[in-house]
Amino acid sequence: MIKKHLTKILVTVIAVAAIFFFKACGGGGEEKVSLNVGGEDINAVIEDRDLTPEDVLAAVKTFLPTGKYDEYLLFASGGHSGQVLVIGVPSMRLLKVIGVFTPEPWQGWGFSKETKEILHAADYDGQELTWGDTHHPALSETDGDYDGQFLFINDKANARVAVIDLRDFETKQIIKNPLSLSDHGGTMVTPNTEWIIEGGQYGMPWSGEYASLDDYNEKYKGMVTFWKFDREKGRINTEESFAMELPPYWQDITDAGKLVSEGWVFQNSFNTELATGGIEEGNPPFEAGASQRDMDYLHVIHLKKAAELFKAGKTVKINGFNVLTLETSIKEGILYFIPEPKSPHGVDVSPDGNYIVVSGKLDPHATVYSFKKIKDAIDNGKIKEKDPYGVPILDYDAVLEAQVELGLGPLHTQFDPDGYAYTSLFLESAVARWALGGEWTKKNGKEPWKLVDKISIHYNVGHLVTAEGDNIHPDGKYLVSLNKWAIDRFTNVGPLLPQNFQLIDIGNTDGQMQRLYDMPIGIGEPHYAQMIKADKIKAWDVYPEIGWDPGTQSKSPYGVLAGEERVKRTGNTVEVWMSAVRSHYTPERVEVRKGDKVIWHITNVERAKDATHGFTVPGYNFNLSLEPGETQTVEFVADKQGVFPFYCTEFCSALHLEMAGYFLVKP
Amino acid sequence: MIKKHLTKILVTVIAVAAIFFFKACGGGGEEKVSLNVGGEDINAVIEDRDLTPEDVLAAVKTFLPTGKYDEYLLFASGGHSGQVLVIGVPSMRLLKVIGVFTPEPWQGWGFSKETKEILHAADYDGQELTWGDTHHPALSETDGDYDGQFLFINDKANARVAVIDLRDFETKQIIKNPLSLSDHGGTMVTPNTEWIIEGGQYGMPWSGEYASLDDYNEKYKGMVTFWKFDREKGRINTEESFAMELPPYWQDITDAGKLVSEGWVFQNSFNTELATGGIEEGNPPFEAGASQRDMDYLHVIHLKKAAELFKAGKTVKINGFNVLTLETSIKEGILYFIPEPKSPHGVDVSPDGNYIVVSGKLDPHATVYSFKKIKDAIDNGKIKEKDPYGVPILDYDAVLEAQVELGLGPLHTQFDPDGYAYTSLFLESAVARWALGGEWTKKNGKEPWKLVDKISIHYNVGHLVTAEGDNIHPDGKYLVSLNKWAIDRFTNVGPLLPQNFQLIDIGNTDGQMQRLYDMPIGIGEPHYAQMIKADKIKAWDVYPEIGWDPGTQSKSPYGVLAGEERVKRTGNTVEVWMSAVRSHYTPERVEVRKGDKVIWHITNVERAKDATHGFTVPGYNFNLSLEPGETQTVEFVADKQGVFPFYCTEFCSALHLEMAGYFLVKP
Repeated sequence: MIKKHLTKILVTVIAVAAIFFFKACGGGGEEKVSLNVGGEDINAVIEDRDLTPEDVLAAVKTFLPTGKYDEYLLFASGGHSGQVLVIGVPSMRLLKVIGVFTPEPWQGWGFSKETKEILHAADYDGQELTWGDTHHPALSETDGDYDGQFLFINDKANARVAVIDLRDFETKQIIKNPLSLSDHGGTMVTPNTEWIIEGGQYGMPWSGEYASLDDYNEKYKGMVTFWKFDREKGRINTEESFAMELPPYWQDITDAGKLVSEGWVFQNSFNTELATGGIEEGNPPFEAGASQRDMDYLHVIHLKKAAELFKAGKTVKINGFNVLTLETSIKEGILYFIPEPKSPHGVDVSPDGNYIVVSGKLDPHATVYSFKKIKDAIDNGKIKEKDPYGVPILDYDAVLEAQVELGLGPLHTQFDPDGYAYTSLFLESAVARWALGGEWTKKNGKEPWKLVDKISIHYNVGHLVTAEGDNIHPDGKYLVSLNKWAIDRFTNVGPLLPQNFQLIDIGNTDGQMQRLYDMPIGIGEPHYAQMIKADKIKAWDVYPEIGWDPGTQSKSPYGVLAGEERVKRTGNTVEVWMSAVRSHYTPERVEVRKGDKVIWHITNVERAKDATHGFTVPGYNFNLSLEPGETQTVEFVADKQGVFPFYCTEFCSALHLEMAGYFLVKP
Repeated sequence: MIKKHLTKILVTVIAVAAIFFFKACGGGGEEKVSLNVGGEDINAVIEDRDLTPEDVLAAVKTFLPTGKYDEYLLFASGGHSGQVLVIGVPSMRLLKVIGVFTPEPWQGWGFSKETKEILHAADYDGQELTWGDTHHPALSETDGDYDGQFLFINDKANARVAVIDLRDFETKQIIKNPLSLSDHGGTMVTPNTEWIIEGGQYGMPWSGEYASLDDYNEKYKGMVTFWKFDREKGRINTEESFAMELPPYWQDITDAGKLVSEGWVFQNSFNTELATGGIEEGNPPFEAGASQRDMDYLHVIHLKKAAELFKAGKTVKINGFNVLTLETSIKEGILYFIPEPKSPHGVDVSPDGNYIVVSGKLDPHATVYSFKKIKDAIDNGKIKEKDPYGVPILDYDAVLEAQVELGLGPLHTQFDPDGYAYTSLFLESAVARWALGGEWTKKNGKEPWKLVDKISIHYNVGHLVTAEGDNIHPDGKYLVSLNKWAIDRFTNVGPLLPQNFQLIDIGNTDGQMQRLYDMPIGIGEPHYAQMIKADKIKAWDVYPEIGWDPGTQSKSPYGVLAGEERVKRTGNTVEVWMSAVRSHYTPERVEVRKGDKVIWHITNVERAKDATHGFTVPGYNFNLSLEPGETQTVEFVADKQGVFPFYCTEFCSALHLEMAGYFLVKP
């Protein structure tokens, strides 16, 4: 078959082959290399599929043979799918979609009594919430490095935070922020996961309060919440958590300090113009109104001291929650502002904790602040002025370390171990690699604070992530560009396009970055992701004991062993204790009267890996997923009469279709 | 770095290289080929990553460079996720998860008024259904080949059928079966998509009726439903649809006849033992009780004649639906049984329509029936006996064409253009290639009805699919093995494991099949899939006009152009007509009183591809996805007071975070 690029590729392949040819034979020669495997010529396949040598290199760098494991796991927010995506790197294969804010029947998530309780513990004002807009996942850390134990993620749409246990990759807790309905700046963790940070976004009066937009400046609030994480229990302790009131700027992303800057938190903001929109009334729309000033405010928060103030009883109760008022924070000297270029998005602390990198998306630079200089400015009162709310503003020039010109629309930055930073350029559709200065110059040997390489991506990257790239020990190697638009990258699957995760090899810091792989994301729009060394995660194969409740990570009082199954009627309540094993349920027949309340416990009594069973009763709208050892419960009123053949929804054996039974509801 | 298999691979690579080396230099020599790309040696990567030459071949056969498109699209059921998965072949990348039976917020599916109406049109007896168990997708066909226009899929858990339009990859219609709550044997289509077949599974009295299991033989029913598809409207016409009552065996998969057998439908069954379970009462469990007999019954249905009988008024109304009673079907000669080996799963008609292949999962053979012989047996009354319900049973020996010994646990069969069939072997974890006989022998040149090749897979394959493999013109080339268990294939992501789709190259029919790629499926458990040539699908880039309602695929009465936005109060109802464009909404402020009913229409007035906007009001539990041109509506009661900052949930520009506004609910 003649392909349009055949000539070019043939020449390239021949040229490539010639390197060896010359070496071996010491002379000219233009014959192709023939790489024969089982009667097939690899080069013929390469030609037929129009692959360039760069493509072949990318293919062998990403292909994972059957049964071999990925080196890294990427935990990506699932955006407005409400879920978390788990992706192997470098193969870029989607290993699991974890149900978080949206009910997910494959996992039985949000259908059993146990998981409903977790999901709906964070409903809002009587409103059942069945979706979320996940933004920023945060892996738990020990001493500033990922420890592979927990994952946290926020729901921007309703201001919630979820806790996922990485022993079974299931959601264990969802918390509703009591103050706000908007939380873009979460989640991030402190270096030992003492605190999970949830920063707000759009200014609003405290939840449930009405205030006219005319009173925006006085009655609308900003906030950042610090959730105390109890690692032993694997849960957030809301009683020991607190928030800080902030001016009603629109706070954006946060990052926790590390090493020298540990105990401090940095948070961007925009709309320091205090615009309130109203295009329909002739006002400038938010996109213009919130972009007037050249500078917004980086919030510098002394979290360690804030926590001490909270312990010392300096908080007040708002909506039943502990809040440090703005007045207290100013008075106690735990909140400072620094001017930062217009409409910033990312704030990222360097691995050594020395530098805070901010990218103003309407400014072509990465702006780098020195923590030492910030500390010095605070300690020595280098305050130029105060904002209208009385927050001291540090002298920009006094705390600035460098400005690095990168390109159009810089957003987010991550790091490698060799003294390089990587910044996404949204408008330019590129990723920039640039050299850190200071002590890092010894490592990278480059001119400090300078762009060294840039690579085009497809298209319009928001966040990017490098391997362990926001840890104190980043790995480098791989970068994933979380591209927002795919446009022409994939086969057309209708007007709603997948996003595009592009895997980039950043291992060769003396040479250029190399695009390796395009991964379409056809479920939700991921925002941020974190990439952890896969062997740090010690997930369970099966649950520790038969009768396990994953919701509490302990034995369920409702579990049964084989032989203990039973049905018990008490008045109008019928309680069932059922077992599931390949390939039958016990009991197989359950009969009730219409109107009875049914409480149905099911235990998978298997101990073999992958021996999962499902359970559904048609017409009653639930599906359970019972992993080996797991016990789950469904409760419902038998309000529909008739015969309902229940069955195992997970193909569990050759006789899986026979794993069924009858639920009969007598009129 | 020293890898454990380094020596073996080096030797292999050297041996491969040597082919060229000998050719070029005419002598010995053991130097490695150096394939240098941009300063990097491809072979060094291959060695470092432990890739065998077979792996490299698989890598270059599956890798797709950025911007190149997959040759095929695989439409896979998402199993108990309730959705449909769209996957590119050969890259095995998940391009989209289509929301079908489960609400999916990224797509706004099940959150807007328009999509809620579609989703909940098929609720059951007042019960809202928010999940499904999708089993068998069926692409629409013209003259027996996929035409790329529509996709149908069933929900086994509640007996529903969905219609997806492949212009925008969205669900347009969901139908509840009025007779049953169990439908494993759907969906399949007739060669011109006149009928969508929905076969039942577990016997039950007609929906809503109670009958004791003691009365199983008399009062429980089987069924197959034929939904009339109106291609012009892109919808099922329920009035022109009908069902056939069947004995209460557990009907399984169906397939429609094609070419010579067009107008006929074939359907497996099991549990012809009429077992009713009851292990808890000392009865044999279903897995044993339903596996006693050596033979079950292949149902042979004369659909063409059944449709004529329906038109002639021979149906009765049951639950308001048109049903041909078993008595009528027997009397009119449109239903016959053929003995088929024990507990069959798949029934598949060969591309020429001549052969019906059945696999009894507890029998090591593929059993092949000749349509010609079946027709002859019917026409000439070769009836050996009748079943207890009076259905005539054709003489097994008279209609049998061949039995092909394949291996353990054969389930499903697909075809290629060269006269080969491919059958999944569940218990053996393998795929068998075998030669068809009859006229096909001229094509394949092999001994008829014989196994020719077998390949191991990982692990336990249910369905398999070949490219256009159940069409009258199969393409061959690729086969995907839909493996049910992954066990050790992927990095451990907790006790609930992904499934494993394995891509297999079946292009070389003179040689062996070759495993190319393992794709983890981390969302739901797919059952069946169909693989269509990608260029057959003509999906839209954007909606045809501004103000488009995808639910009706026509202009919405609620769309607006820029400048037509407005808010109107009528009593306690506030109606909003809003527009969305990069990067603002108009209006940006909407204020109502607590208790008001809010009807909110939003139109994306963009015309550029990929310029999608989202819309959510925090705390009110919805997200909309508005593709270019789309209009959607949400309706709710403003029962929560306060201030709700609404925003665009799709990253639409550098000023996307500024695409926001305020919804105020005054006490």
